[in-house]
Amino acid sequence: MSEARRAGELRLAADPPADATLAFIGRIRTPWGRDDCPRNPAEARARGGGAVLQIAAPYRPGLEGIAPGDALMLLYWMDGADRALIRLHPPHRDAPAGVFALRAPARPNPVALSAVRCTGIDATAGRVEVTALDCHDGTPLLDIKPQRPGVDAP
Amino acid sequence: MSEARRAGELRLAADPPADATLAFIGRIRTPWGRDDCPRNPAEARARGGGAVLQIAAPYRPGLEGIAPGDALMLLYWMDGADRALIRLHPPHRDAPAGVFALRAPARPNPVALSAVRCTGIDATAGRVEVTALDCHDGTPLLDIKPQRPGVDAP
Repeated sequence: MSEARRAGELRLAADPPADATLAFIGRIRTPWGRDDCPRNPAEARARGGGAVLQIAAPYRPGLEGIAPGDALMLLYWMDGADRALIRLHPPHRDAPAGVFALRAPARPNPVALSAVRCTGIDATAGRVEVTALDCHDGTPLLDIKPQRPGVDAP
Repeated sequence: MSEARRAGELRLAADPPADATLAFIGRIRTPWGRDDCPRNPAEARARGGGAVLQIAAPYRPGLEGIAPGDALMLLYWMDGADRALIRLHPPHRDAPAGVFALRAPARPNPVALSAVRCTGIDATAGRVEVTALDCHDGTPLLDIKPQRPGVDAP
């Protein structure tokens, strides 16, 4: 394990174990590379540009019933994230905080979560157009869920 | 693969592949068994009773910064879900729909998502008390994130 990067940061003694497995159901196409990626959804929306979900063939029947205008929750895999960092000192904060109190990609299970609106869909081709996302082009997609205000707010 | 269960339902030809791995960071303690579990968060809230997140020791420093009153998004693992079902006919709907248009547990990556409010926390003991959840006692927990209205709604 490498050292923590800033004072007050803390790493796990070992990488997280493999208790379950995930399948990538497709890829997210965005205008962003790894170096110019917006740091959060607000910045992505401000910079503009939508995203496209490219769904692998076996999973395309799962899109039936999604329509333009729908609010969707996307779960995607932050494949470059540091999974052993457990306490983090983000540059914009005064003090370190636990990763579960932050939306940073670094966390034991780097599953990102972002709400978008569907702007177009071709289910047969496995193509879903959505509003802006803050991930780099090619990010693996894990799940699409209908957003429900009664479930996704306490 | 077993047959689809109702007319119009569809299964994948093979179980989803293992493209990435997840670690269970703890368990969710609820009043519900597998047989009397609420079908959704609205039903769980109506029936009452909070839940407790029991966080495994290595991950407890990740809780620092969470306080009572905080709105949290929880990601948890629906360990009994059918991962090969891709089009589903829920009893309460007129017609089948793709799993990505539904919040059903059956989906290629059965990661559930629910918003709660923190009602108490002992980070050292790895104990976080939260409002009602619709999962059975012992459900594996994957992640805790601060809920952000600007990220979690489109």
